[in-house]
Amino acid sequence: MPESLDDLGPYRGLAGHGEATALDASDPLSGFRTRFVETDPELIYLDGNSLGRLPTHAPAHVVSALEQEWGDRLIRSWNEGWGELALGVGDRLAPLIGAGPGEVVITDSTSVNLYKLAGAALEARPGRTRVVTDDLNFPSDTHVLAGLAAAAGGRLDIVGSDGISGPVHGIEAGLGDDVALVALSHTTFKSGYTYDLARVTAAAHHAGAMVLWDLSHSVGSVPVDLAGAGADLAVGCTYKYLNGGPGSPAFLYVRRDLQPELVNPISAWWGHEEPFGFDLTHRPAGDIRRFQTGTVPIVSLRAAEPGIDLVAEAGIDAIRAKSERLVAFAEARWRDRLAPLGLTWASPTDPTRRGSHASLGHDDAWRLTQALIAVGRVVPDYRAPDSVRLGFSPLTTSFVDIHTAVERMARILEQERHRAFPADAPAFT
Amino acid sequence: MPESLDDLGPYRGLAGHGEATALDASDPLSGFRTRFVETDPELIYLDGNSLGRLPTHAPAHVVSALEQEWGDRLIRSWNEGWGELALGVGDRLAPLIGAGPGEVVITDSTSVNLYKLAGAALEARPGRTRVVTDDLNFPSDTHVLAGLAAAAGGRLDIVGSDGISGPVHGIEAGLGDDVALVALSHTTFKSGYTYDLARVTAAAHHAGAMVLWDLSHSVGSVPVDLAGAGADLAVGCTYKYLNGGPGSPAFLYVRRDLQPELVNPISAWWGHEEPFGFDLTHRPAGDIRRFQTGTVPIVSLRAAEPGIDLVAEAGIDAIRAKSERLVAFAEARWRDRLAPLGLTWASPTDPTRRGSHASLGHDDAWRLTQALIAVGRVVPDYRAPDSVRLGFSPLTTSFVDIHTAVERMARILEQERHRAFPADAPAFT
Repeated sequence: MPESLDDLGPYRGLAGHGEATALDASDPLSGFRTRFVETDPELIYLDGNSLGRLPTHAPAHVVSALEQEWGDRLIRSWNEGWGELALGVGDRLAPLIGAGPGEVVITDSTSVNLYKLAGAALEARPGRTRVVTDDLNFPSDTHVLAGLAAAAGGRLDIVGSDGISGPVHGIEAGLGDDVALVALSHTTFKSGYTYDLARVTAAAHHAGAMVLWDLSHSVGSVPVDLAGAGADLAVGCTYKYLNGGPGSPAFLYVRRDLQPELVNPISAWWGHEEPFGFDLTHRPAGDIRRFQTGTVPIVSLRAAEPGIDLVAEAGIDAIRAKSERLVAFAEARWRDRLAPLGLTWASPTDPTRRGSHASLGHDDAWRLTQALIAVGRVVPDYRAPDSVRLGFSPLTTSFVDIHTAVERMARILEQERHRAFPADAPAFT
Repeated sequence: MPESLDDLGPYRGLAGHGEATALDASDPLSGFRTRFVETDPELIYLDGNSLGRLPTHAPAHVVSALEQEWGDRLIRSWNEGWGELALGVGDRLAPLIGAGPGEVVITDSTSVNLYKLAGAALEARPGRTRVVTDDLNFPSDTHVLAGLAAAAGGRLDIVGSDGISGPVHGIEAGLGDDVALVALSHTTFKSGYTYDLARVTAAAHHAGAMVLWDLSHSVGSVPVDLAGAGADLAVGCTYKYLNGGPGSPAFLYVRRDLQPELVNPISAWWGHEEPFGFDLTHRPAGDIRRFQTGTVPIVSLRAAEPGIDLVAEAGIDAIRAKSERLVAFAEARWRDRLAPLGLTWASPTDPTRRGSHASLGHDDAWRLTQALIAVGRVVPDYRAPDSVRLGFSPLTTSFVDIHTAVERMARILEQERHRAFPADAPAFT
């Protein structure tokens, strides 16, 4: 393991440091940092968009669920809270995405939820055979959609982009009366491009198609107004900006008026009108419950509650305001310090069209990522083949974090420390 | 809340008590009881087949996952254990069901796994349109299968039983060259009837059909030999006799030689050959990983490990031996004390054809269940419309437990204490 940088900062006196300090001093959300566990003060964690930090309250909350609910109350807990928990947490999450009570439920994974809702949309548009997405969408979404479209005898159109910005014109141009569904990531996973949700929703509806938004990279960092846009369907994960923990169960949204008419292709017991009636014929619930399947993992759901509640407490508008300042500051530091070293800004430059993470392009991105972690004590994400992705989580990332991380990255490149690392990426990155 | 019985036992000197005490004294698994949390010594928990007890080690194990893995190591934990955890726990579970390494993975819920594997089986038998099950199967399974069969242009045949024993002859008689899949619960959820897995598997194969076993009520209590039977597919849950915790993630099994040819209908990233390669085309993994979908809920999976490992430590043969003694003792106590009070034995009488739970039939089953919990401090399961289901979890249930529970039930009926409770069952029971 290569040794760390001689000087890990903070780099007082260097360009930008005073500004960072001032921005932190005037940050109304700075107090939230102590609501999350931080074990290593030298580590700069810029991956809260992949796995948010552990809320300090989460372990006690989970232990209570284990010892009181499971250990003491045992099966009785299903009648004392567990049975409605997925709906209750969905209702608490709903205001973050412009949804109302009874329009959101926690269930399954994002991919499975996408499968259920996209499958329901295809079923609801008989005779239409095309599904439209873009090449910025998360590949798992693309795979799920391609599989569904093929099974329905249709096809998935993947509209090409410039690699950074969503191909809005291309998507709109490709709409026609054979399109059943437009499915996109609201904020894309690599560049952070953030769609005008209302505009694309309106265009899809104009063509008679339904629209499904993957909110995984926007929920908790970008305000989402599903109701205002009249969006039909949405899915998303809870372990990124919502800080719900590794693999915490995902959510889905179905606009209220669509709930009685859309058919969940996975017709299982938790989607039944009367799950414990045990009749042999499936009678789907008339509301959001019909999009549930099996039993939700309660321990993971309990672990996810504190993070979701912290985001709600901070307020999505305050979070977005800080997020815009964080990304703008990172962009300024990149221009000043990293662009001269060959790193490109692989994210939108329009502040209104980006989320809370940004990617930097570099031919040696994987080696640079390894050096950042091992030498620089900065944790970003590598995204194949050429991106170092930096996530700025408004509840836990400070401006001095960004200043320090950029400086450490610059020193690694100047000292060519990344060349000591292997070029081949492992399976999990 | 009605007051409790005057005398909650143990009922020393009554018929059967001496036998119960002797059976407990010679029980080689009696030491396992202290490996699980017991907060209320008066409570008799006969629902370990619905939600197993909390292993004493589970809270510390989960807190370690929260604080060390999530809190301290953060995203790096995906490279330090989480990434392979679902496969590793699957490998540890595999010997309990006669599977080999690389044939089992923990993922999704039982219903979603059933959907994936039954969908794959239908796809693998083009031209065959029928799916066969029985009316003892768990209704969620029936609903999922009916939905899949209809979507494939076929139908689900639900072979009728006498309500207790699996209709083996009816299933065999109904097989033909139009059957794609036979899908059954190995041990059925209400009566506990346990199929001859090898026999039905052979019959299905003889007809050219695939077979899918739901092991939810047998795994951890009944030895299962999937390899010996040549079974194709299996699913099951981990929160019953495996004591994995509420909604803990489920497992699936695909026989090794079938893995490269069966197609998971939900083509998502964790089923990809290279999940973090992020290419837009789905290339399914060549092995069991292709049946994964999204990210597994790690906190719930960590919570599930201690229970699974305790079952493995005890050994499935020792567990089965005790289970047979527990059910036989319960049957003897029922005959002696409860049959005269109008309760029927709604489970098989053949010890080789039953699992580790039994149902007692009664017209007032729901009121009796409520009285058992509130007055008798005995927790069974109510199963609509007329069953009180008693689960005997070999690692935590004692023979004196059974003796005491039966006596309390008898006194409730004799004193007509159940008549004080409402007749209408709530949503969650």
